[in-house]
Order: sequence, then C-alpha cells, then structure tokens
Amino acid sequence: MSDFVCHGDILYASDADKMEVFEDSYIVVQGGRTEGIYEVLPEKYAHMPLKDYKRGLIIPAFSDLHIHASQFVQRGVGMDKLLFDWLNDYTFPQEARFASMDYAKPVYDAVVKELIRHGTFHASLFTTIHYDASDYLFHVLEEKGLYAYVGKVNMDMNSPDYLCETTEESLRQTERFLAEHQGTKTVKPILTPRFAPTCSEPLMKGLGELSKKYHCGLQTHLAESLAEVKWTLELFPDYGSDAEIYERNGMLDNGPSIFAHFIFPSQADIDIVRRAGSMMVHCPDATTSVTAGIMPVKALQDKNVPIAVGTDVGACQSTAVYRQVARAVQLSKLKEFFEPEDNGRITFTHAFYMATKAGGSCFGHMGSLEKGYHFNALVIDGLEDDGFTLTPQERAERFCYAGDDRNIVARFIDGREIQ
Amino acid sequence: MSDFVCHGDILYASDADKMEVFEDSYIVVQGGRTEGIYEVLPEKYAHMPLKDYKRGLIIPAFSDLHIHASQFVQRGVGMDKLLFDWLNDYTFPQEARFASMDYAKPVYDAVVKELIRHGTFHASLFTTIHYDASDYLFHVLEEKGLYAYVGKVNMDMNSPDYLCETTEESLRQTERFLAEHQGTKTVKPILTPRFAPTCSEPLMKGLGELSKKYHCGLQTHLAESLAEVKWTLELFPDYGSDAEIYERNGMLDNGPSIFAHFIFPSQADIDIVRRAGSMMVHCPDATTSVTAGIMPVKALQDKNVPIAVGTDVGACQSTAVYRQVARAVQLSKLKEFFEPEDNGRITFTHAFYMATKAGGSCFGHMGSLEKGYHFNALVIDGLEDDGFTLTPQERAERFCYAGDDRNIVARFIDGREIQ
Repeated sequence: MSDFVCHGDILYASDADKMEVFEDSYIVVQGGRTEGIYEVLPEKYAHMPLKDYKRGLIIPAFSDLHIHASQFVQRGVGMDKLLFDWLNDYTFPQEARFASMDYAKPVYDAVVKELIRHGTFHASLFTTIHYDASDYLFHVLEEKGLYAYVGKVNMDMNSPDYLCETTEESLRQTERFLAEHQGTKTVKPILTPRFAPTCSEPLMKGLGELSKKYHCGLQTHLAESLAEVKWTLELFPDYGSDAEIYERNGMLDNGPSIFAHFIFPSQADIDIVRRAGSMMVHCPDATTSVTAGIMPVKALQDKNVPIAVGTDVGACQSTAVYRQVARAVQLSKLKEFFEPEDNGRITFTHAFYMATKAGGSCFGHMGSLEKGYHFNALVIDGLEDDGFTLTPQERAERFCYAGDDRNIVARFIDGREIQ
Repeated sequence: MSDFVCHGDILYASDADKMEVFEDSYIVVQGGRTEGIYEVLPEKYAHMPLKDYKRGLIIPAFSDLHIHASQFVQRGVGMDKLLFDWLNDYTFPQEARFASMDYAKPVYDAVVKELIRHGTFHASLFTTIHYDASDYLFHVLEEKGLYAYVGKVNMDMNSPDYLCETTEESLRQTERFLAEHQGTKTVKPILTPRFAPTCSEPLMKGLGELSKKYHCGLQTHLAESLAEVKWTLELFPDYGSDAEIYERNGMLDNGPSIFAHFIFPSQADIDIVRRAGSMMVHCPDATTSVTAGIMPVKALQDKNVPIAVGTDVGACQSTAVYRQVARAVQLSKLKEFFEPEDNGRITFTHAFYMATKAGGSCFGHMGSLEKGYHFNALVIDGLEDDGFTLTPQERAERFCYAGDDRNIVARFIDGREIQ
C-alpha cells in the first residue's frame, strides 16, 4: 500500500457536537491510515505523491448499521402498504427467492456496487435465512475490501411456511456460517435473529451458545413499534424487556450488539443496552415509511445511549446514508414539534457524527479522519453554484440534503482508491 | 408545431384516487396537445412520426406551486437554524442582493435550468421586491416556454430596512410589473404580498385595486405557523381570519389564488378559500425543515379544499417536485401517527395527482395526459434493476422516492421536445 498526501478542504465530526474543519490543508496517509492533517505540508512528507482536490471536500466514508441486502430490489415501491401487507406481499415472498443463487447473485452484486457508489464502506447487513446466498454476499464484500458484518437471518416461528426454519436447522446453518467465515479480513459474520417474535427461546439460547463459542456479535430489531414490544413480551413472558432476551441468552458479551430502531424502549431496555455498550440504529426514512414513528434521538443521546444511522433498505428507498443524515435532522424537528416535552432537535453535526464516527466505531478506528483512523474517505465536489462559495460545513450539509453520487469524485478504503 | 406519436407505457392521475395506466400503448400528439391514447395505433395516425420509448414511462410534467426563485442558492444550507435566524442570517440578506442584476441573472438562469432538468414545467414563483430582477426571470421563463406565474414581492413593514419598500413604491412597482407584462404567452404576473405581517392594510387595499384593474391572481403564505396566525390577527384586528384579508381587499376575484402551507387554517379560512376556488400548496420538506408542522392533507381533502404541491425552495433543498410527492405520502403517515384523531395517510396516487393535475389546473389544461391537455410531459426510464420488472405505477413510485433527473430521458412542452 503506497503512502500519499491529499490536498483540499477536510472535514469530520470528532464528536456529536464537534465538527473539525481544515480549509486548504493536507492530509497525510501512511499505511492506509491518517497520519495527520496540516495547513502547511511538513518537509518530511514532501516526497510523497500528492493528490490535489483543490476545493474538493475530504470527508470520512459513511457507515450503514442496518440494511437488508435482500430487500434492495424492493426499494421505493409498495410504500402505500401497511407494514404487515408490505411484509406479506413484497418482502417475505421476495426474500424466499434467495434460495436460488441465480436470483441472489445479481441482487447482492448490485447491493455492493450501490454501497460503493454512495460511499458506504462500513455496513451491517441482514441477508435471508439462506446459507449459500449469505455466503456469496460475504465474499463479494470481502473481495471489495468493504468493512462489514453479514448475518444469515434466523426465523423459526411466526413466519410464512416458505420462509421458516426448524430450530435445529437454523442453529446448524448459523454455526456453519460462523465456522466457515473465521479469519476473514474485513468482513465478519454476526448473529441475526430477525426479531424476537420470529425466534423461539430455544433458538435464542442456541444462538447465545454460538456467540460464546465463535465470539461474535449480534444484530436485530428492537422496540420498533408498540405492537411489536407487546407481542414480544407475550411470547417471552419470563422476560422483563425485549433487550433482556438477548442479554440473558448471552448474545451481548462477545462482539458488537447492534439494535435497529429503538423507538419505544423501556427503561430496562435502556439500562441493558448501556450496560452492554450496544449501538442503536436510527433509520429515519424507513421508520417513516412503515409508520413506526420517530426515534427519540436527542432524549436517548442525553441518556448516553450510542446511536448510529442506518438506511434499512428496502423500507428505505435508497442506500445513500448521507441522505439519512439530513432526514435525521428533519425528523428530530418533527419529533420536537409533536412531542415537545421529552424531545429536542439535533444538529447537522450530530447527525453527521452518527453516520460516520459513531457507526464506524463498530468496525474499529473508522468513520473519522483523526490520526490513526483507517483512511476510509470520500472526496465530494460540485456543491457550489457558479460564482457562489460555501464553507466546508455548508458544502457537507448541502451534500447530505441535496447531493448525490455524482458529487463523490474519489473513494478510498484503507488508503486504496477504488472505483 | 409538428404532430407525432409516442409509444411506451403511459401513466397519469385523473383524480386523487384514480391512476390511469396504459401499458405498451400509443399517445397521439396534435397541435401540442394529447389527441388520445391507444393500445393499437389507428390507421389514420400511422403516417405520423413515431418516437418509440419502449418500456419508457410517459407521465405528465410536474407543477411547483410555491418556489422562491431568489432563494435557490441557499438550498440545503443553514438548515439547523430556527426560522427567524434562517430568515435574518441567510434569506433576507441574500434577497437584498437581487438589487444587482449581476447577482440576479446567473441565479435566475440557474433556477430555470433546474426547473427544466427536474421536469417542472408549471410553476408559481416568488422573486424579491426588485423590479428589474423579477422582469428578467419573467422573460427567461417566457423564452423557454415554461408555464409560470411570477410575482414581484411586496414588503412594506416588519421587514429589514434593506429589504423594505414604502407603500407607494411597492404599489407603483407592482403596477409597473403588471402593466409591462400583459399579453405574454406562457408566463403571467401575479400579486405576491410576502405574507400578511409584512404588508400594511393600505398596501393590501392597493393590491386589491390592481388585481381588479389588471385581472391578475394572488400568491402568498397562509397559516404556516400558529405564531404567524396570531401575529397576523394582531396586526389586522378588524379581520376575522388571515384569508379574509385577501378576500375583503378584493384579491381573490380575478385569477388563481395560491396559498402556501395552510397548516393551521381556521374554519373561516377554509370557508373563504373554498368559496374563492383557491389552491392550497403543500410543501412537505420545507415545512419540516423550518418546523412549521405538517399540512393536514387528508383532512383538508375530505373538506374538498384543493391542494397542490410546492417545493418552497430554499426552505426545501431541491427543486425536484417528484421527491415532494414521496415526502407528502411519508409525512401524511407521521401526521396520522402523531395526531390520529383528525388525520389519515394519503396514497401515492393522491400525492402524484396533487403534483401534476391539481397543480397544473392553475395554468389551464395541464398536468394530465387526457385528451385536450397540453402535451407537457416527461419520459422516465432506467428505474428497473437488471432482470427485474416493475409495473408502471411501481416505476412512477420508485422515480418519486428514489429517482433523479438522470431518469428523465425526454421532456416535452406543448408537444415540443426540449433539452
């Protein structure tokens, strides 16, 4: 891996309330990581190759902590349907087709291409219950060098016949998935019980044992709707909260635990995820379209609950995480408007932080341009109208609100430029 | 103007609950208008030139009933600011610069280019208080053949010193604007008091007289926030409602009356706008970003209040009306979620109808592909993944949720193809 220097404007969020901005500066990349940012390039780096992006803005790559790779071909259609009709008419029949590799391969190839196109280099992905298709996605991601968690989905109850496993088969295929994907470089397997209502207690128990045996993390949906919370507690009467199911079955001890949505958490849920150091995932467009509501981001932040951003494609129409940054700001305003007593708006910096450094933290030192972080970065440009200049933060904001992949003029993973 | 035939899939909303779909069909264009749609092309049209778009989807062009052309260069920046900071820090200083034609020309050129790029061929535009710049935008729109209303803005109180007219000057320049733009082809002048708090009663009275003298319509903001409603009634204590100011001063009698937002209307407002046959304008992203709230679209529809769609750039980040179609569906779900007693969700068909035929009705027979309507149309394509087919309605839906200008492969105004 060659070392090099990039020149341009540089921007990243080091914290939820701190945007770091370096105009007309140099970022030195050594061994695939950021060595430092300088207004004047130190003499000792003067020999390195220089990529001059002029007014191009160098930002961290995005992190999508919740995406259903298998639902990609459904994006932006059927959005008038209520959740259960959407699942039964579109999602479940579509997911069932991943039994065929002829079906799965082009979809997963397209998903990986889309992630790269939109600058998402860290992702936690749901597949389906099918081993072979999940294995294929895993290898395509690894081949491209993207950082990812991939989870073969578990479903052994309350699922359509054509998309339901036996408990034994679910555990057997999950163990196979974990065992066969040890020692990989950038992609790791992760436990993926779809959500509590589709997974029996014996399955949860077995997954906890696999978590310990293979030292792996967990991703699932948690507290997405009040109906789901109620149903879960009816199905698991011995548990006091949804999160407790994962805690007591030992799934929060051996890797990152990633919980999508967390819109209606109980205090017990909050205590458990904070104790476990879990990551919650805010998916603004998706929970709008399936009418789950709006995550109380500001209130959770005030309680020190870590939050990242996810697209939740296909409930979301696009894999562009940057657009969800804008949407997170917008929805926090509506949350405050409709429920002012408990909620507040968040800033652009906060939302950008969630979609970069917060989400990236599940993968290692990623999602920032601080010294020592992987140089997983984008250069964005073309955001100013002729004759009008914007500050770096204004350009980042316009990109998230109104830009698209045409504004991403360079992409780097581990300091390697990719197309 | 030459006559021709287009082949493809054809889709338009003839009503809020009726999407008309013709797969693999022919649309005959004569004299710039739709003559008819046929599954099999009648022999008498066989001699006409044929444009074959194959699986391309032919849809009506979009209508943007509320856009601040002068705020285009602000789009997608400063969105963390509260409304009055946003106005004072960004909007007002920026609008003041339209006193300079060197400033105004490139901005208005860019706006018109953007409208065409995104397939918006019918628009009602605010400019600023400045005559020359407003005149320039008028002529650029007319030259391109777009259908539009353009309004020189009136502000004679509660405005920054640098962006405030005397009552006399405001009326004088407005009359000049109306008088100098009579007899134009596709663009018409329209009265544009910014909103009641910035316009004195004598100004309103004078505008009403001009409305009668020059037979022109009205556009303004109405009932955008509770604070605005309260302030307006304090400033106009002799009036029972915001809409009554325009009614009693004679501004609803001589052309379309177009009211943006209408989020907190009183029953008196509703009665007045229905009596006048006015058009309300829903601007979903804009009223989210400035936290005005969500228009009660379903409830108003149930009361037979006509509603179109607007972007309200620059409070909205983009001139793409089709994206506001998706957003209108999404926000109706949140409105129902947070205030279920009075509200319901709307369908994609309903939102598409508002953004095409409903909005187009302010300009004549536009916004539909029915017989006799102007052939102001778009061809959209590239919305299907390799190997996956979608119905025409699914393609229209995906376009509005996730497509962009790259999906618009042909554009027609009055049967004339434009680039």
